[in-house]
Amino acid sequence: MTDEERPDPRDQTIDRPSDPDEDDFLPRRELLEQIDDAIDAEDGERLNTLLEPMHAADIADLIERLDTGERRTFLRLYSGEIDGEILSEIDEGIRDEVLEQLPRHVLTEAVREMDSDDLVDLIEDMDEPERAEILAALDDSDRAAVQQSLAYPEYSAGRLMQSEVVTAPAHWTVGETIDFLRAEEWLPEQFYHIILVDPRRHPVGYVALGRLLSSPRGTPLGQITEASFRPVSAYAEEGDVAYAFNQYHLISAPVVDADDRLVGVITIDDAMAVMDEEHQEDILRLAGVGDESSLSDTVWKTSRQRVPWLATNIVTALFAASVIAQFEGAIVRLVALAVLMPIVASMGGNAGTQTLTVAVRGLATKSLTASNTWRVVRREATVGLLNGLIFATIMGLVTYAWFHDPLLGMVIAMAMIINLFVAAVAGILVPLALERLGADPALASGTFVTTVTDVVGFFAFLGLASTVLL
Amino acid sequence: MTDEERPDPRDQTIDRPSDPDEDDFLPRRELLEQIDDAIDAEDGERLNTLLEPMHAADIADLIERLDTGERRTFLRLYSGEIDGEILSEIDEGIRDEVLEQLPRHVLTEAVREMDSDDLVDLIEDMDEPERAEILAALDDSDRAAVQQSLAYPEYSAGRLMQSEVVTAPAHWTVGETIDFLRAEEWLPEQFYHIILVDPRRHPVGYVALGRLLSSPRGTPLGQITEASFRPVSAYAEEGDVAYAFNQYHLISAPVVDADDRLVGVITIDDAMAVMDEEHQEDILRLAGVGDESSLSDTVWKTSRQRVPWLATNIVTALFAASVIAQFEGAIVRLVALAVLMPIVASMGGNAGTQTLTVAVRGLATKSLTASNTWRVVRREATVGLLNGLIFATIMGLVTYAWFHDPLLGMVIAMAMIINLFVAAVAGILVPLALERLGADPALASGTFVTTVTDVVGFFAFLGLASTVLL
Repeated sequence: MTDEERPDPRDQTIDRPSDPDEDDFLPRRELLEQIDDAIDAEDGERLNTLLEPMHAADIADLIERLDTGERRTFLRLYSGEIDGEILSEIDEGIRDEVLEQLPRHVLTEAVREMDSDDLVDLIEDMDEPERAEILAALDDSDRAAVQQSLAYPEYSAGRLMQSEVVTAPAHWTVGETIDFLRAEEWLPEQFYHIILVDPRRHPVGYVALGRLLSSPRGTPLGQITEASFRPVSAYAEEGDVAYAFNQYHLISAPVVDADDRLVGVITIDDAMAVMDEEHQEDILRLAGVGDESSLSDTVWKTSRQRVPWLATNIVTALFAASVIAQFEGAIVRLVALAVLMPIVASMGGNAGTQTLTVAVRGLATKSLTASNTWRVVRREATVGLLNGLIFATIMGLVTYAWFHDPLLGMVIAMAMIINLFVAAVAGILVPLALERLGADPALASGTFVTTVTDVVGFFAFLGLASTVLL
Repeated sequence: MTDEERPDPRDQTIDRPSDPDEDDFLPRRELLEQIDDAIDAEDGERLNTLLEPMHAADIADLIERLDTGERRTFLRLYSGEIDGEILSEIDEGIRDEVLEQLPRHVLTEAVREMDSDDLVDLIEDMDEPERAEILAALDDSDRAAVQQSLAYPEYSAGRLMQSEVVTAPAHWTVGETIDFLRAEEWLPEQFYHIILVDPRRHPVGYVALGRLLSSPRGTPLGQITEASFRPVSAYAEEGDVAYAFNQYHLISAPVVDADDRLVGVITIDDAMAVMDEEHQEDILRLAGVGDESSLSDTVWKTSRQRVPWLATNIVTALFAASVIAQFEGAIVRLVALAVLMPIVASMGGNAGTQTLTVAVRGLATKSLTASNTWRVVRREATVGLLNGLIFATIMGLVTYAWFHDPLLGMVIAMAMIINLFVAAVAGILVPLALERLGADPALASGTFVTTVTDVVGFFAFLGLASTVLL
């Protein structure tokens, strides 16, 4: 883009929103309304004009926010303009819908512009015929790169990397390297390091472009390499790669195959996107929402995603109810038990959720490790006892004031201590056990822990009450 | 680092862990055990040798994982080696403890090596005397940069930026720029773009270093600028900046003051760290855990962080219990009500949490906006009704089978539909309302929503039962 084409930077500065209802990171609301109007009026020309200055990522978001009917109209009007950049920004959930409506020539045109990592992301979930069609549209070197990536497992560094790499032998000088870069017809759009390779294509270091630019022409590359250099195995999990980028402030990292030969490079923007997805997954899984759920999903899809968690919960709730049923006699004789019992269970559930969230986060951020597990378990158990004592005192006094029954106050206080202690221990041990078993602690911990706190809460309170009071 | 000093890359490749108990991103367990032994033996020399090859971020994590006593010993043995890099990696919660034990000359030495953004992060929470002491240790230009940053609000782009920027006039050629970079004594450690400024220091574009390196010497910089150029206001919130980096795949962005003059630059690694922190906050707030909590906190601190949420919960649980108390007569006449009522409340709580988590995420990722609010509300309400019908049918049949009372089955089915519908509507409207009021929806939504589902659950079930059955 040359100076003349570029809009005044002040028009797109990222700023504090002046109107609290507006958000400066999103296209202005009036623009969105105009776009809606153009879609309603099926005015393709106007739509083109409105979308022209928008970033591909914002156009993709716009497509995601439309409902299915609007999206169909939108694509009919705009599909000729969909390029590789927009396509790689569209959510996986919506992408199939978009691809189906895209004229073949637009799709083949779009995929030719895409980087190999975006192509892999696009076609990895496709069926064989569609995949073959897209591969056929690529030129030979892109196709080879994509097929090489697809040979690595899903969610691996090999799938995330781009194959376009800028390399140089370590014995080259700064001047030779710059001359090579100037002469090279083809270079990736974005690159931040020159990766140094030995004759067998093993990466042995890398040079930051800023360092290259500021060093005298005669300097050998081997003398100006960066200490941050860390090759990534193509088989490493993408979540671990994102962690390493954040932990070690990497900007790019070479990817090596099983023989330690360079096969690609991962850049931080892809690592950041992975981190965002992993967080999204964690938070949605903790709440029992399907981790691929999106606000643009249909009612049916949304319902289907949430039913499994609710179904699990109804089973555990019935189990807890069966505990209550054991004490029907006690409840009939002292109905205050029915009034108070949900408090004990609910406090346990909340305390357990607090602990398990901290544990799940600790595991995800690798701050809960073998070296501090027992210290953290001890701390959580102690906190559980301490908070149990605090809320036992409060509930004991409240119950005494409410029902004028000191023994009932004692019983609920005891039950509270037991349940908050058990909640803390379950809250830390359940995620640790799931992790040890290879399951995702974010996904299943909640059910286990609240089942424990419900059952223990009801059993401790009603059981103690039957023994002490009746 | 030169070739001779660099360890074999195969020794530090990021790989799949071969032993499932080990994690390749963390220092090996045996190394950690040796470090523990060295601390216990108070063997400073051995500790130095063990820590020598470790990355500053890993040493910081190690310091965080120690308990208070061990940390004291560790710092006594190792404090001479704490440098700016380690210091900027240590968690805020622990940093005060470390700073207190650091000999003055080590601290002043460490801060002199730090970038201005890390310095700001270090001293922004300090009291005046300590802050003045550190500022005094800096050279004039660093001190000015830090003071300029501190003039911007907390959590703003101005606090996040580094003041060290590489700029050039737009009329320079590639050759002139490279000569300038070679001659310049001082350059930031990491930079990815040359920012083009006009004579009044307004940024007008930027050039990627890769593009600079691959263009002929005679090319004017103005002809090879990048389309991704987006200045950030120094007053923009850091969370919004992180969003923009992820959305628009930015690697660095110039920061401008109120007059659109260049004051600094933000790089993607800082944006990634902010994004990680914001996610951490969201997930911990949703669970009612203090958002600054860390696994290295003491029992007292942890307990203090969790009590407010539990205290809120006990108030709402008492409120729900008072609803039950209204129906004591009904429970005594039909004790099955006490057995079944927690199921209705619990299902509502889970369904509400599902919806509110999706809503909180949608707000955080800016995918829930003014343009699709009503569509999402309608969808959630419909899903609530649909899932209500599904679980009403199941619970109706289970109740009939258990208690042989078709009317009781009808009552629990009705209550389930009502509560799951109300849960969905509250789950979406409560976070939206909190966001509109300027509160953080992650922080308070949970309490509101579960209060609603508990109260509505008990009231609908017991109220319907009293009316229909008794």
